[in-house]
Amino acid sequence: MTRTANTFAPPVMEARRWLEAAEFPPDRPLINVSQAAPVDPPPAGLRDEMARLVQEDPTTHLYGPVLGLPDLRAELAQQFGAAYGGRIGMENVAITAGCNQAFCAAIATLTGEGDEVILPVPWYFNHKMWLDMAGVTAVPLPCDAELLPDPDHAATLITPRTRAIVLVTPNNPGGVEYPADLVAGFASLARRHGLALIVDETYRDFHSRSGAPHDLFTDPDWSDTLIQLYSFSKSYRLTGHRVGAMIAHPDRLAQAEKFLDTVAICAPQLGQRAALWGMRNLGQWLAGERAEILDRRAAIEEGLPQLMERGWHLMGVGAYFAYFQHPFDIASDRLAQRLVQEAGVLALPGTMFMPEGDAGGARQMRIAFANVDREGIARLYDRLAGFTA
Amino acid sequence: MTRTANTFAPPVMEARRWLEAAEFPPDRPLINVSQAAPVDPPPAGLRDEMARLVQEDPTTHLYGPVLGLPDLRAELAQQFGAAYGGRIGMENVAITAGCNQAFCAAIATLTGEGDEVILPVPWYFNHKMWLDMAGVTAVPLPCDAELLPDPDHAATLITPRTRAIVLVTPNNPGGVEYPADLVAGFASLARRHGLALIVDETYRDFHSRSGAPHDLFTDPDWSDTLIQLYSFSKSYRLTGHRVGAMIAHPDRLAQAEKFLDTVAICAPQLGQRAALWGMRNLGQWLAGERAEILDRRAAIEEGLPQLMERGWHLMGVGAYFAYFQHPFDIASDRLAQRLVQEAGVLALPGTMFMPEGDAGGARQMRIAFANVDREGIARLYDRLAGFTA
Repeated sequence: MTRTANTFAPPVMEARRWLEAAEFPPDRPLINVSQAAPVDPPPAGLRDEMARLVQEDPTTHLYGPVLGLPDLRAELAQQFGAAYGGRIGMENVAITAGCNQAFCAAIATLTGEGDEVILPVPWYFNHKMWLDMAGVTAVPLPCDAELLPDPDHAATLITPRTRAIVLVTPNNPGGVEYPADLVAGFASLARRHGLALIVDETYRDFHSRSGAPHDLFTDPDWSDTLIQLYSFSKSYRLTGHRVGAMIAHPDRLAQAEKFLDTVAICAPQLGQRAALWGMRNLGQWLAGERAEILDRRAAIEEGLPQLMERGWHLMGVGAYFAYFQHPFDIASDRLAQRLVQEAGVLALPGTMFMPEGDAGGARQMRIAFANVDREGIARLYDRLAGFTA
Repeated sequence: MTRTANTFAPPVMEARRWLEAAEFPPDRPLINVSQAAPVDPPPAGLRDEMARLVQEDPTTHLYGPVLGLPDLRAELAQQFGAAYGGRIGMENVAITAGCNQAFCAAIATLTGEGDEVILPVPWYFNHKMWLDMAGVTAVPLPCDAELLPDPDHAATLITPRTRAIVLVTPNNPGGVEYPADLVAGFASLARRHGLALIVDETYRDFHSRSGAPHDLFTDPDWSDTLIQLYSFSKSYRLTGHRVGAMIAHPDRLAQAEKFLDTVAICAPQLGQRAALWGMRNLGQWLAGERAEILDRRAAIEEGLPQLMERGWHLMGVGAYFAYFQHPFDIASDRLAQRLVQEAGVLALPGTMFMPEGDAGGARQMRIAFANVDREGIARLYDRLAGFTA
């Protein structure tokens, strides 16, 4: 059995293929709420800087250190240390070619064949896919009706092969922001059992609270347990440039360096320099982006009655995502394809975020609303409310 | 045992650390022959195009298909099909974030825990590292005195767990260009045993022969057996932009898509567009680059008597590399560190390209001469000839 035979095909590519079979009339174009990614280019200032780097900084075109551009590592350490109220040094930061790669690297430093990692359900499908290919069993931790995982429940799933627990907050696909004390509960559980706690904060810059979303970094020994993952893709609109980060103990990063060297050599140099410029210059701009996303989230909530009337139920919302239970007596993967054809809406079905055969997933849909403005959300809701199965 | 604990630290990063402990007087700067990478930026036309893309093509900043930009896949298929005299369609081409990643993806589609892959020795260390982390045994295939591997010898190493044989031609670290009939012999061996033959042609554009370096693609059934790997990094000076390729059967690429989606999502978009522009516009320029590299190779050979007098022996030469046996009674990893300190030369020791404890590696050194012009090669030879242990 090969590694790739152990897992399923990329859901996002599958969803793209649904579009190939569909036509959208000009007066009713597709509303694409499938993608957890900005669709606009970076702001002009950042594009100018990138054009300048390409022309004037020859090192932009060369290999760099495996663990990343030192200035970017230092800047991230400084800003995150200040934001989370903890001590983070540049020796704690590795830059990766996207946050997915940071996850893969973390898993490579934690696990061997046959080990186990606990993933709250619904999960981010790329996490599940990588664990499958790494020979690691993804142990599903069902969430409650508010999409929150329970540390006490997680405790019952720990075995001698368990190596880590993974949290994504704000959550993908659920949107939900995990309360600080919940995250702390998982950290404490992980520490007691000598496990790693991986906290994927790809969407942290769009959190509704303005302070630190958790206080794990205030523990001087945080790096014994915590591995934080981050993405520059969403915040600075750099998805195509592939830049993410892993914040962890330096000894773990020395191990991650082996993985990153072989699978990437280094993260793309232009993306790293763009991320650095963004961190130094786009704080104000990013605050505006966050305000816009939070306003769209408000629109999602304000429009709810129209959908609730038709039997839709909002299970979670936050950052880029709203996660719904749909009212139809058909499985969500079938529903998703019908929504493309009949409603001109592309959204991902809950089945993509669940163990195969999970009955919950069949009733759920993820709406990635970040690219849709208030007017678009109104149109989206009209189409969903108008759909009958 | 974690995956990363199964392998060694990245040799290139180790070599970089040797430099930190050294000082180089202005009248005798370091001669760095450790890196298999161009050190100059891409030509002006390509930089202009990249700056234009950043400003004017918004898709440059977005995620793209996991298997790569369709136009680049098609262009590579067309050019390689013509160059190798075979049928290669865009459905045979996947674009990866560098050629290392293409290797990792290929291995993921071929192997599971405990499988075996045959690697000629000296090997490219990143191949060995990835196999270690993938739970795959790298089975060393010793080469002859000309650094050529023997298919008949390889046949004796095949077991029920063998999944692939890997060739790198022109070779890293050995420089040697494998004759077409040798490559054909391996393809025939692989086919007889139902194995994959992975042929890494990262340095193909600097091959000394101007025709196709092998005829594997002329077999209409090539994709049953052959997986070709390629890198845009060296040819168009795009190392920092991370673009490579894997040419294989579409079914294998559908499997590779799972791996690439989770570890990379997609290759960087700017690098892909730059590679496409390069393929379409830099043919003439690349021919000049190749001529320059071949002239440097000639300088390596012409200057040999000076080194042979001191007991150095050239084992292989080609593309970016000359591979030497050194005359000293000290191990090559120790020699390499002394050469930094005492001769101002950074080159990688044979120990980095061998199984641990291999006596051959202790006597060998890789000289990556591509970045050193004729004058620099003369200086390099003076320093090596002047070194006494």
